[in-house]
Amino acid sequence: MADPAVKRDSVEADELSQRAEKKARVDDENGGGGGEGEEAESENVLCGFKTSNVLNDSAREKTMFIRGKLADQEAVVILEKTPIREDTLAELFSSSTLKLEMKNDIYSTYRLHAPPHLNEIKTTVVCPATEKHVTKYQRQESSLVEETGEDYQSITLPYIQKQTFSVQWVYNILEKKAEADRIVYEDPDPEVGFVLLPDFKWDQKQVDDLYLIAIVHQRDIKSLRDLTSEHLPLLQNIFQKGKEAILQRYNLPASKLRVYLHYQPSYYHLHVHFTKLGYEAPGCGVERAHLLADVIQNLQSNPCYYETRTLYFPLRANDGLLSKFKEAGRL
Amino acid sequence: MADPAVKRDSVEADELSQRAEKKARVDDENGGGGGEGEEAESENVLCGFKTSNVLNDSAREKTMFIRGKLADQEAVVILEKTPIREDTLAELFSSSTLKLEMKNDIYSTYRLHAPPHLNEIKTTVVCPATEKHVTKYQRQESSLVEETGEDYQSITLPYIQKQTFSVQWVYNILEKKAEADRIVYEDPDPEVGFVLLPDFKWDQKQVDDLYLIAIVHQRDIKSLRDLTSEHLPLLQNIFQKGKEAILQRYNLPASKLRVYLHYQPSYYHLHVHFTKLGYEAPGCGVERAHLLADVIQNLQSNPCYYETRTLYFPLRANDGLLSKFKEAGRL
Repeated sequence: MADPAVKRDSVEADELSQRAEKKARVDDENGGGGGEGEEAESENVLCGFKTSNVLNDSAREKTMFIRGKLADQEAVVILEKTPIREDTLAELFSSSTLKLEMKNDIYSTYRLHAPPHLNEIKTTVVCPATEKHVTKYQRQESSLVEETGEDYQSITLPYIQKQTFSVQWVYNILEKKAEADRIVYEDPDPEVGFVLLPDFKWDQKQVDDLYLIAIVHQRDIKSLRDLTSEHLPLLQNIFQKGKEAILQRYNLPASKLRVYLHYQPSYYHLHVHFTKLGYEAPGCGVERAHLLADVIQNLQSNPCYYETRTLYFPLRANDGLLSKFKEAGRL
Repeated sequence: MADPAVKRDSVEADELSQRAEKKARVDDENGGGGGEGEEAESENVLCGFKTSNVLNDSAREKTMFIRGKLADQEAVVILEKTPIREDTLAELFSSSTLKLEMKNDIYSTYRLHAPPHLNEIKTTVVCPATEKHVTKYQRQESSLVEETGEDYQSITLPYIQKQTFSVQWVYNILEKKAEADRIVYEDPDPEVGFVLLPDFKWDQKQVDDLYLIAIVHQRDIKSLRDLTSEHLPLLQNIFQKGKEAILQRYNLPASKLRVYLHYQPSYYHLHVHFTKLGYEAPGCGVERAHLLADVIQNLQSNPCYYETRTLYFPLRANDGLLSKFKEAGRL
């Protein structure tokens, strides 16, 4: 039942892919094989890939999730074009060819053909892929769910408890058994302490899409719903020290940060998101994100705010929790 | 002073750029020359391009806006990687080379080097570019501002009142002097009534990016800050009848909608945004959007919630209100 790899990934499709990649990378660093192949030119394993169907794609983000067969095994291939890099512009301009599309007055458009090494496609292969992988990457419509305090007690909480989502990977981080080298800041206090580290979605190459996660040391806070005024010192500590650590490490002041929690979160161990203001991070929409500053303010004015409050959040069509809300006639 | 067009369009840089591109494209279709050069291999006009600075870029969307010189003329070059196309997948897989990055269990990641014609970069050149182009494409950094109830009274309100932003275009809509044919629904009641119509950002061709605005008939409510419990009937009426009208006209149920207010709004006459859940509409981020359902709930529990509450919102670097906050030592 417990499947940390899959649970860690119970988010949007594009997030999923990045985390799957990441998980593999981390496991790899932690002793998995193949790491020395860094610059190796591989035999083209995708040469024999037979596409069955496209699970998801984004014209805006230049990504595609493809299901198919690789030597008779089910496989999922994830393609994502890489961001344009300022440090390669000179070479890009001098060594590409241009095909004119149209020219009018001061405007002209071209199709630029770049040398392949300046225009890579990040490729992730999952093989053999299970039905779970396919479902995970498949595009899913979301519905907005309205959850009263009672709904939480009668529908959501029992569902969470039954799932026994493993957060062992979180404990590994907190105990320095994994990803210790990635930690940006730690306050080791068992009550108000936390570990701050880059989210898997962030490649740390530029601060434009800065994304860090603060994971609390306390192990009994599942989500926003569990927060009461007694957690104010913890929340204020994360807010304050997280902002300071980011200023120090990345030279980014607090006024450039969006600091928030997700509800529902993708895993039920309290964590806080720090992203760059202006970067449209997945999950920063008003339907899922709650500004930490607002959370603190709400708990200051009402100690039980999140126990009694009706909360709204989107659930994907294949989310088991959505079925529970439907069964209960709440949708 | 009053400039309704600017107020209405005060949006993000990338939107602007897309509009500029679009304009160029349309102008071209309307009689510009050079269209026959479709497949021509051009001499590489960008070979001599000297980059001055990057005006804007998006790691997520794989775009970059670059300012520089082309044969001593100011120029702006816009690069955007093209979406991945399903119809070229077979050729892409068979004719690319792969560099292994890591392999662990069922996961492996590669850098894929594709033949250039399968992995083009859309390139737009504006030359000579004016200062106006540069400003248009330039990323405006935003800063998060913290506004207490007192800050609103002493900084924001005087600023709004001094600007005398014209909302004549709003009155024209309410009085059917303009855009009457675009109205999707109206409740004419002077107290709780409103007009619902498509936002300009929505081309109404598909519901995937549905975007409507409800504009209230009452003329004395500037923004969220003015709302008290006495406005609950108005808010509940908009919420209810807006959702019903959208279901009827677009067959989209309430569970597929994100209904919210902006703070700060782009014009100071109360209006509510209805967008499709799952469509990442500009301005739907937690730092600017407030779910109408939350607003109603907050006013139910505290009639003066928005009068006294500290509110957070982003302001662009060139926003006059930001200067006021800086002058007041609040940033």
